[in-house]
Amino acid sequence: MIATTTKIHNFSAGPGILPIDVLKQASEACINFDNMGLSLLEISHRSKNYVAVMDEARQLVKDLFEVGNDYEVLYLGGGASTQFAMVPYNLLTENGFAAYVNTGVWASKAIKEAKILGNVKVIASSEDKKFTYVPKGYEIPADADYFHCTSNNTIFGTQMKAFPKCPVPLVCDMSSDLFSRKVNAKDFSLIYAGAQKNMGPAGSTMILVKKDILGKNGRKMLSMLDYNAHIKGESMYNTPPVFPVYVSMLTLRWLKQNGGVEWIEKINQTKADTLYNEIDRNSCFVGTVAKEDRSFMNVCFLPTKPEYEAEFDKLAKTYNLSGIKGHRDVGGYRASLYNALPLESVNALVEAMKEFEKKFA
Amino acid sequence: MIATTTKIHNFSAGPGILPIDVLKQASEACINFDNMGLSLLEISHRSKNYVAVMDEARQLVKDLFEVGNDYEVLYLGGGASTQFAMVPYNLLTENGFAAYVNTGVWASKAIKEAKILGNVKVIASSEDKKFTYVPKGYEIPADADYFHCTSNNTIFGTQMKAFPKCPVPLVCDMSSDLFSRKVNAKDFSLIYAGAQKNMGPAGSTMILVKKDILGKNGRKMLSMLDYNAHIKGESMYNTPPVFPVYVSMLTLRWLKQNGGVEWIEKINQTKADTLYNEIDRNSCFVGTVAKEDRSFMNVCFLPTKPEYEAEFDKLAKTYNLSGIKGHRDVGGYRASLYNALPLESVNALVEAMKEFEKKFA
Repeated sequence: MIATTTKIHNFSAGPGILPIDVLKQASEACINFDNMGLSLLEISHRSKNYVAVMDEARQLVKDLFEVGNDYEVLYLGGGASTQFAMVPYNLLTENGFAAYVNTGVWASKAIKEAKILGNVKVIASSEDKKFTYVPKGYEIPADADYFHCTSNNTIFGTQMKAFPKCPVPLVCDMSSDLFSRKVNAKDFSLIYAGAQKNMGPAGSTMILVKKDILGKNGRKMLSMLDYNAHIKGESMYNTPPVFPVYVSMLTLRWLKQNGGVEWIEKINQTKADTLYNEIDRNSCFVGTVAKEDRSFMNVCFLPTKPEYEAEFDKLAKTYNLSGIKGHRDVGGYRASLYNALPLESVNALVEAMKEFEKKFA
Repeated sequence: MIATTTKIHNFSAGPGILPIDVLKQASEACINFDNMGLSLLEISHRSKNYVAVMDEARQLVKDLFEVGNDYEVLYLGGGASTQFAMVPYNLLTENGFAAYVNTGVWASKAIKEAKILGNVKVIASSEDKKFTYVPKGYEIPADADYFHCTSNNTIFGTQMKAFPKCPVPLVCDMSSDLFSRKVNAKDFSLIYAGAQKNMGPAGSTMILVKKDILGKNGRKMLSMLDYNAHIKGESMYNTPPVFPVYVSMLTLRWLKQNGGVEWIEKINQTKADTLYNEIDRNSCFVGTVAKEDRSFMNVCFLPTKPEYEAEFDKLAKTYNLSGIKGHRDVGGYRASLYNALPLESVNALVEAMKEFEKKFA
């Protein structure tokens, strides 16, 4: 069971909800970490107490992904936006090209950064329909340096339900659905995710990388953009984001102890089904994307009449529903159902939608 | 007065000691931030409550440095090590060169990164004497793109007591003595500092930059390495390191409310004088660097006989002295006297040194 945090139902798209037990431990560590009599915020990252945190945080990713020592795990600052640059910086060759699929705002940003560094082919895109579906059936060129995709579209609310057969290194931005469902990590050469959606607070980004793809493009690299420099430094080439990594470690420990990805996937399925069923049933709301591509993490929906919006906003407040305003590019509502969100929060939203229909339909 | 945190005297070189009131507020914000009923770790960085934090954090830097709107303040991830790259990336021209002074490990790293991006002239260095002094009397070439220096040498314990007359943009890494003493910020075009020494927890880096030096070198820039992209985004081009920035804001607010840099400078002077006087008086210890260049932040000293070390380590434990082990490049001891360290911690160290001399000299 996922413990309830407060009476407020936190549907924030990111930074998003974290388990209450994690928040309590994080709060305690700000005063007295690991019974050291010192705050986690003021101890050396080279202390044995903190090195143990970093080691556990890295190992937990391997455990949850079920990968071995041919992979390395890093926690870096700079957000997934820095990974948009680091991926091509490390993998794109001077005369080669990278293949990208464009499924939304974040994929577009990743493409933009890669183009600054070399040749990019956008082999599929859903921009023609405002990113309301996920392109399928494309072929990935066997001579690409790598293929990059974005597993979940936080803003428009679509999600890749399967990953294409990939003859080249498969690179994926999983920022908004990391560890929400089972994926075969061994099919991927590099997975990255800003922590602040499903894994921890803002300030650190997780990178899982298969070592054999690195060091091959001949670029003379700035140290902070070089995955190998960070691997050599065991994710402490420089001072890491100490506290954000600690909270990510606690969140992954919570996930593993409760039953891991298989456990959370079932709960996430129930939460998503509950909400999408209500959207499809309720005459006052309508989903925004192709049904088969609906995200189980970010559920976007519009009121069927524009004048409903102000009224539903009012009602939502009485139900303590927080963070459900849609992104400005989509409008309407977006309910993010990240791992730590309990089913009862979804039920509260559904109740509000039902009450709204009774009053206003 | 600086409040005592615990019975442990925290001399850690970084991440370093923070004010106890700041730690308490940080702890509380992990559970209930700003009376929102939500944790700071799980709210949107675009919420008005958090935008106010970022605004205050940026304004406090301007207030404490006494600069106006020709400067901008950023808080970025990636540490000062990322600034080693961003400075030349934004300021170094294709056919120009940058002038650096090499005063230690961190300056050397800054030079290494700049050399990857263009031409660098090291116009002065103290490497000949293992960085135990600060070079002086050098002339900065008037045709350099910029001049870079490191105000305080955390590892060897030297500090620039004055900054050279500079005919080109003056860039300074102030990571380990930021806001510990009055400097004339208007003499600088760019100041950066990893927060984790004197300002906050690890995970964010403060940059003060004069706008008129940017956008001039014609480089096609990766967004995350482009100061102008971050300025345009008001330090939220991407999700910022939310919690580290909050704690930095609290620390700067604490500094300003207590009397600002002038207030802390007097206390820091007393702390440093107290410890250096004891080092010079005590027959069992000796300072490691030129007296006129001694750092007021990181005080390095050696036992006069190698066999003293094991004994003093034992005694230090009984005095609850934490984090005084010297860096492996220097050995012996290093006591970091950052802003939040109370004078009574220095007094405790001095007491231990006196007792040691009585027993072992």
